[in-house]
Amino acid sequence: MIDTLSKDSVGLVATHLETFNVPVLLACGRKLNQFVLSYECYGALNADKSNAILVCHALSGNQHAAGFHHVEDVKPGWWENCIGPGKAIDTDRFFVLCSNNLGGCHGSTGPNTFNSDAKRPWGPDFPIVTVDDWVKTQSILADSLGINRFVAVIGGSLGGMQALQWAISYPDRLKHAVLIASAPKLSAQNIAFNEIARQAIMSDPGFHHGHYYDKGSIPKKGLILARMLGHVTYLSDHAMRLKFGRELKNAQYQFDFDIEFQVESYLRYQGEAFSEKFDANTYLLMTKALDYFDPAAKTNNNLTEAFRSVQCGFLVISFTSDWRFSPKRSVEIVNALLAANKVVSYAEIEAPQGHDSFLLKVPRYQAILKAYMERVADECGF
Amino acid sequence: MIDTLSKDSVGLVATHLETFNVPVLLACGRKLNQFVLSYECYGALNADKSNAILVCHALSGNQHAAGFHHVEDVKPGWWENCIGPGKAIDTDRFFVLCSNNLGGCHGSTGPNTFNSDAKRPWGPDFPIVTVDDWVKTQSILADSLGINRFVAVIGGSLGGMQALQWAISYPDRLKHAVLIASAPKLSAQNIAFNEIARQAIMSDPGFHHGHYYDKGSIPKKGLILARMLGHVTYLSDHAMRLKFGRELKNAQYQFDFDIEFQVESYLRYQGEAFSEKFDANTYLLMTKALDYFDPAAKTNNNLTEAFRSVQCGFLVISFTSDWRFSPKRSVEIVNALLAANKVVSYAEIEAPQGHDSFLLKVPRYQAILKAYMERVADECGF
Repeated sequence: MIDTLSKDSVGLVATHLETFNVPVLLACGRKLNQFVLSYECYGALNADKSNAILVCHALSGNQHAAGFHHVEDVKPGWWENCIGPGKAIDTDRFFVLCSNNLGGCHGSTGPNTFNSDAKRPWGPDFPIVTVDDWVKTQSILADSLGINRFVAVIGGSLGGMQALQWAISYPDRLKHAVLIASAPKLSAQNIAFNEIARQAIMSDPGFHHGHYYDKGSIPKKGLILARMLGHVTYLSDHAMRLKFGRELKNAQYQFDFDIEFQVESYLRYQGEAFSEKFDANTYLLMTKALDYFDPAAKTNNNLTEAFRSVQCGFLVISFTSDWRFSPKRSVEIVNALLAANKVVSYAEIEAPQGHDSFLLKVPRYQAILKAYMERVADECGF
Repeated sequence: MIDTLSKDSVGLVATHLETFNVPVLLACGRKLNQFVLSYECYGALNADKSNAILVCHALSGNQHAAGFHHVEDVKPGWWENCIGPGKAIDTDRFFVLCSNNLGGCHGSTGPNTFNSDAKRPWGPDFPIVTVDDWVKTQSILADSLGINRFVAVIGGSLGGMQALQWAISYPDRLKHAVLIASAPKLSAQNIAFNEIARQAIMSDPGFHHGHYYDKGSIPKKGLILARMLGHVTYLSDHAMRLKFGRELKNAQYQFDFDIEFQVESYLRYQGEAFSEKFDANTYLLMTKALDYFDPAAKTNNNLTEAFRSVQCGFLVISFTSDWRFSPKRSVEIVNALLAANKVVSYAEIEAPQGHDSFLLKVPRYQAILKAYMERVADECGF
């Protein structure tokens, strides 16, 4: 049981569902006449609604970024390390908002929700959504809460891409963008890993072309494979060496196809656990949004040009052992921002944990984020 | 049609099958009373049988290392770049032998061959084989050909592990060992990728617990996934960027789950082609042999101790962009050899193509291998 009086947690929180009867035209050309976003918020919105921070989640994240849903919850929200009273994103000073992305599987309209036109779950008929679409629907959520301008939009990985898109799409609606372990677009290798994950899901006989909800099956094996693969790319070779090395499950080789090494056991467990709580169609959508993200495509592949109209300040953070979105990828963003004469701070953090570092307690990373956010709060007088 | 008179190819070659009625005790504790090895040889064995080189193949390789099987063959053997008259492994001076590993699917006894006890193909009942076992059976093949000592045992990747094991298991049966893009053991990350590939194959409904030969099916989707994943790890991020970047298949995004980027098309093609010519059970065995290889395990994880009794000279080659078996892994071998006072030459080759470099025309790599082998031939007076 959690200590709900714990001073550095936001404590018990609830997910809100908001229905928007606003037609939204998506990047793919299709239109949703109505959509729901699920979201959570922590801290208090001040009188002039000027102290709001938007936190954007990554591939497998959701709106539950901090706190606990029940007093018996064993796991807090995914960014409990960073969000809370006195933490880097200080809920004593900021009002923090986090929504489940459109197409997600945690309450927002997505493949696992009911398509009233077809009278069945959306499944594969749900439109392909992009980072642009997410930012657009997040802005509609902000409108409904009366938030005209965010103090900061913050995200790691795919969340960082949303923060970057906010800076481009709505330059006057955010003061700061914080991009952690992110990239300006996927590399061919990134796309390749996504494609393998998708093929694993789609070739699972339980997938039924995406209409598995009423079949009493899920593409479990495919989702497990996708997650196992994802997981290997989130960890560094070094981190895996420290964590598992060649440690065996039994005292000696068994010479069969059961689990032989601890790393196999760990991956199977991770895959299994994930397959029970995440929707396969949403996984497919999230990987496509990653593939498609490429803000420089509209400016002839010139990232500096893409940044011409941005107004916010930037904090960009990368991790040395992150080989999914390496520091080089962050530096591409930083250099393009500098070339466009924008204000940017950059920190490359020495950390062995790979891409996952952005979710972990890495002291220098958290100290830098905290210092930046404190300065922001001080400037604003919160 | 090939030019069989081409001066730098060994031209038309044939695969030989040799049955050994010698019981062989495998590392897993099981015994084969009889086994077949398929092999090819190029160049002429000299009178005292002292000019033989053993080439060991990697995960998806086979005995067909050079030349063509038919005049209409479009593709030569897998190491045509390096084996032939005047090439790095010069068939005008050396007799080159290459066998399909036990457990393989190209003629040697393996899962796709008939198990006369069970009256059906071996399938999953074939014993798990190790690098040790391969070296042992290769030595039996050498005995049958009257070759007491190889001038060199040479291999890339998993082939390099066999060359290393030869140096340890039969110190007086080789003068030189050439290890290219290899490693002294797999890392946790390497094992993780292998495990994902295995799970992809084994969870394919066409796998039928490995007894798919008489089911009219193969675990095709699983094998495709395994190969796609393997392929991504053979190429460097840089090579993929040069080759594909974010090039689209169509003029613009299609917003569906068909092929969007060229890299997806390439991977699917590679996977598809591979699934039609390689046996899934063999793929499983090869990945296990990789996982299990760890010559220092017998000497308390001290690689230098494992090398105490080796007598041959070593050439170790790595490639800068190889992230599957990075130069660091080769340096582990080199340092342990030096600490054991052995003779070793090491070259780290600047090449952008990743792990696959060992199969490709990389001029400096081929020049170094050629120079080394020429010195060997000169010393021996061939």
